[in-house]
Amino acid sequence: MQWVDVPIRVRYADTDRMGIVYHGFYPMYFETGRTEFMREKGCEYRTFEDMGFHLVVTALEAKYHSTATYDDLLIVRTAVSEVKSRGVTFEYNVFHDGTLVVEGRTRHVCMNGEKRAIRLPPPLLDFLRNVESP
Amino acid sequence: MQWVDVPIRVRYADTDRMGIVYHGFYPMYFETGRTEFMREKGCEYRTFEDMGFHLVVTALEAKYHSTATYDDLLIVRTAVSEVKSRGVTFEYNVFHDGTLVVEGRTRHVCMNGEKRAIRLPPPLLDFLRNVESP
Amino acid sequence: MQWVDVPIRVRYADTDRMGIVYHGFYPMYFETGRTEFMREKGCEYRTFEDMGFHLVVTALEAKYHSTATYDDLLIVRTAVSEVKSRGVTFEYNVFHDGTLVVEGRTRHVCMNGEKRAIRLPPPLLDFLRNVESP
Amino acid sequence: MQWVDVPIRVRYADTDRMGIVYHGFYPMYFETGRTEFMREKGCEYRTFEDMGFHLVVTALEAKYHSTATYDDLLIVRTAVSEVKSRGVTFEYNVFHDGTLVVEGRTRHVCMNGEKRAIRLPPPLLDFLRNVESP
Repeated sequence: MQWVDVPIRVRYADTDRMGIVYHGFYPMYFETGRTEFMREKGCEYRTFEDMGFHLVVTALEAKYHSTATYDDLLIVRTAVSEVKSRGVTFEYNVFHDGTLVVEGRTRHVCMNGEKRAIRLPPPLLDFLRNVESP
Repeated sequence: MQWVDVPIRVRYADTDRMGIVYHGFYPMYFETGRTEFMREKGCEYRTFEDMGFHLVVTALEAKYHSTATYDDLLIVRTAVSEVKSRGVTFEYNVFHDGTLVVEGRTRHVCMNGEKRAIRLPPPLLDFLRNVESP
Repeated sequence: MQWVDVPIRVRYADTDRMGIVYHGFYPMYFETGRTEFMREKGCEYRTFEDMGFHLVVTALEAKYHSTATYDDLLIVRTAVSEVKSRGVTFEYNVFHDGTLVVEGRTRHVCMNGEKRAIRLPPPLLDFLRNVESP
Repeated sequence: MQWVDVPIRVRYADTDRMGIVYHGFYPMYFETGRTEFMREKGCEYRTFEDMGFHLVVTALEAKYHSTATYDDLLIVRTAVSEVKSRGVTFEYNVFHDGTLVVEGRTRHVCMNGEKRAIRLPPPLLDFLRNVESP
C-alpha cells in the first residue's frame, strides 16, 4: 500500500467529558490525512479546487477500536483504495503509540462548479490511479 | 418504526467553503437526534451517565444524498434498529424540506466507570428493547 | 433592552475533558443568538446574505463566569448595543438556570460581494437602529 | 518578547460559506499556540493537569484584521504577557504570509481537582514568571 503518515496532536477542544476524543471529530482528522496524502503525492487538493472542481464526500465509515485523549500525538495513515471513473475511496488508520485507534473510509465523487457530478477529470484520474493501492 | 423527529437549525459555523454543511458535522446532528430520542422515550442519557455508565460509539456510517446550507431547518429522524445484550444501533435520517439529505447509523457498547465494556444494564436493556424498531 | 432569548441544548461534542463546555464553543452559541435575534426582529440574516452582503466579525470578547455541561438547557440572550454607519455590536448573555454563565460581545462590519468593507446598506441600518438598545 | 511560533494548516472543516476561516475557530488555534508554548518552554500542560490542576479560561478576546482560507499555513505566535499569583494572560498573533490575521488574548485562573479557584502552584508560578514578557 502507498500509505502517507501525518501526525496530528489532539486538541483540548476535541475531547469530551468522557476524557477522550469525541468520535465525531475523527472525520476532520481523516480530512487532514487526505489533504496531506494528496500534497505528498504531488497534487494539492487546493489547486484542484482552484480549477473549479470538488471531491465531495458521499459516504463515511469509521470503526473505533481504542481511544485517544488530549495531547496525544496521533498518526493518520492514509491511502487510496479504489479509483473509478466517477469516484475515489480513501482509507485511514489512526494510530497512537502503535495501537490502532480508529479505522475510516470516505468515498467521493467529483463535482464541477455548478455542483453537478462529473467524471473525474483525466489528470486527476491519472494521478489517483497512480497512487491507488488496491 | 418508532421514529423521533428533532429540528436542527444549521449554523454558519457548520458550513464550509463549498457553501454547504461540512460532512464531518453530521455526526454531531446524529448525537442530538439520539439524545432527544432517548429523552422523548423517557430515558435521559444524562441520567444514565450520572449512574456511571456510558454508551460509547464503536462504529459510525453516513451516506450523503443531498446537501444543506446555512439556516436550513433540518429534521433529524432517529430510531433504535437493533438491540443486543452488549450493544445498540441507532439509525438517523436527516431531511430538509422533505428531501433526504443524509442517512446515518451508529453502534454503541456500554462501558462502566472503569471504561470496561459491560452488558447493557437491565433497565437500559429493557428500555431499548421497548423502543426497538427492527 | 430589546433582548431576544434563544434556548440551546449543550451537545456532548461541546464538552471537554474537564466535563464542561469548552470555552471556544461559546462563539457558536453567540452566532445562534445573533441569527435568531435578527429573525425574531424581522430580518433574516440569510436573506441579507442572499442580497450579496456579509456582516463580518471584526472583534470578539467573552467573559466566563460559570460553567455548563452536557444536556444543560442554556438561554442565549442577545441584543444590539451599538449601531454606526460602518458597523454594529451585538451583546450576549448566556444563562443556565438563571445563573449568568458567559457574557459576550461581537463587532461586525458590512462587506459586499467583493469582500470590501462598505457602509451598512440603508435598510439594514434602519433595521438595526430600530432594535438598538444603547 | 519570548514568543513561540507554531504552524497550523487550515482544515476544510474550519472554513465557512464565505470561504474563510470561521471566526469562532480561532480560539482553538490559540489553544494550540498555548499548548505548544508551554511544551517548548519546558512545561507540558498535560502534565500539569495530571497533577490535578487546570488553567481555566476566564476571558477571551480576538481582533480580526484579515482572513485565512483552506490549506493556508498559519503561524500562531504565542507569549505570556502577564502573570499574577491568581492568574495568567496569554497573547496570540496569527499570521499568514507575514500578514497579521488575528490578534487574541486569553486570561486564565488555576483550579484544583474540586474546581475551586486557587493560587497558581509555586512551580507553575515560577515557570510562568520566567517566560513572562511584560
